[in-house]
Amino acid sequence: MTDVHILLFDDFETLDAFGPAEILGRLPEAYRMQYYSLEGGTVTSSQWAQVVTRHSSEIRPGGILLLPGGMGTRRLVNNAAFIDTLRRLAQGAAHVLTICTGAALLAKTGLLDGIAATSNKLAFDWVRSVNPRAGWVPHARWVAQGKFYTSSGVSAGMDMALGFVADQQGAEAARRLAHDIEYIWNESPDHDPFARQEGPST
Amino acid sequence: MTDVHILLFDDFETLDAFGPAEILGRLPEAYRMQYYSLEGGTVTSSQWAQVVTRHSSEIRPGGILLLPGGMGTRRLVNNAAFIDTLRRLAQGAAHVLTICTGAALLAKTGLLDGIAATSNKLAFDWVRSVNPRAGWVPHARWVAQGKFYTSSGVSAGMDMALGFVADQQGAEAARRLAHDIEYIWNESPDHDPFARQEGPST
Repeated sequence: MTDVHILLFDDFETLDAFGPAEILGRLPEAYRMQYYSLEGGTVTSSQWAQVVTRHSSEIRPGGILLLPGGMGTRRLVNNAAFIDTLRRLAQGAAHVLTICTGAALLAKTGLLDGIAATSNKLAFDWVRSVNPRAGWVPHARWVAQGKFYTSSGVSAGMDMALGFVADQQGAEAARRLAHDIEYIWNESPDHDPFARQEGPST
Repeated sequence: MTDVHILLFDDFETLDAFGPAEILGRLPEAYRMQYYSLEGGTVTSSQWAQVVTRHSSEIRPGGILLLPGGMGTRRLVNNAAFIDTLRRLAQGAAHVLTICTGAALLAKTGLLDGIAATSNKLAFDWVRSVNPRAGWVPHARWVAQGKFYTSSGVSAGMDMALGFVADQQGAEAARRLAHDIEYIWNESPDHDPFARQEGPST
């Protein structure tokens, strides 16, 4: 049983968190979902969902850290207390999964320096500007390097979560899960219909 | 501005509710998400998400009623207080959207009698058994008849929500929204790769 520590914050993007939570949460024998925020208490998504969270100090080392994106990331990249906590949690985690602009927060910690990673294509210039030393991949549905999984925008988090399940539990487990939730899984991390087409400048 | 009244309950399926909430919530000039439960307070999804809700008595007539499915529906079909409340809310709503086995709850109210509707294909026999007088469609990603929209399992709710946006705001608005969340929209309500193949018996 692996704990999945989902780190939420005000103005997180609803599907960024709950798409992967749906997928990993469908394997309760393997993964247990737990919802946290920096200070604990209730946090509110950009789509008005109020979620009860535990205090981030309760997260024990090990397990999976899952970080959504959303408009709240624009403030949090400049919140030193959040970034310091995130760095410590990410260092202690067995795996770190980010969705959409959650990658900007992780990049801000420096832990993605020289690591291949991706993010939302509509916000790619901003994400890259947060820390250009990460190995940003402009054309990818998701990227996995070592313990770090980073996905493209919002719904790409579900494809990445299934890719993570495939890596951990086998491709058949991931396909069965996708079938059970009647989800048409984009199985290839390299198939990115939303990558910009302008060429090297992206 | 239309209020979207999302009616939650313990053991709702996370993505059933939050997939459509993501999509409709991306149009804050058109839709406002509000989360309710029969008695109010905190409800917990099957994927351990604790969501703060308002009491269902606060829902005013009009607006959109959105009803997820999930394992909690198995108990709720036999909860007369819930079904009576749901009937009253659905009668008063301008539109009613159900996802997955949420259709079983709506069917139990009798409001789907003779109305074309669909549901989760893996639970289809159970859903139909709840009320065989609904016009169950075994092969459909989603079905719209009058004010009732019913979707197939879990992730199909996102396709239906985009279909609802297309009907209300135009197809281009729906396509733009899908692009913004990097979602590969299954645009056709008739394209159902998860329908069972056995023929008329399904």
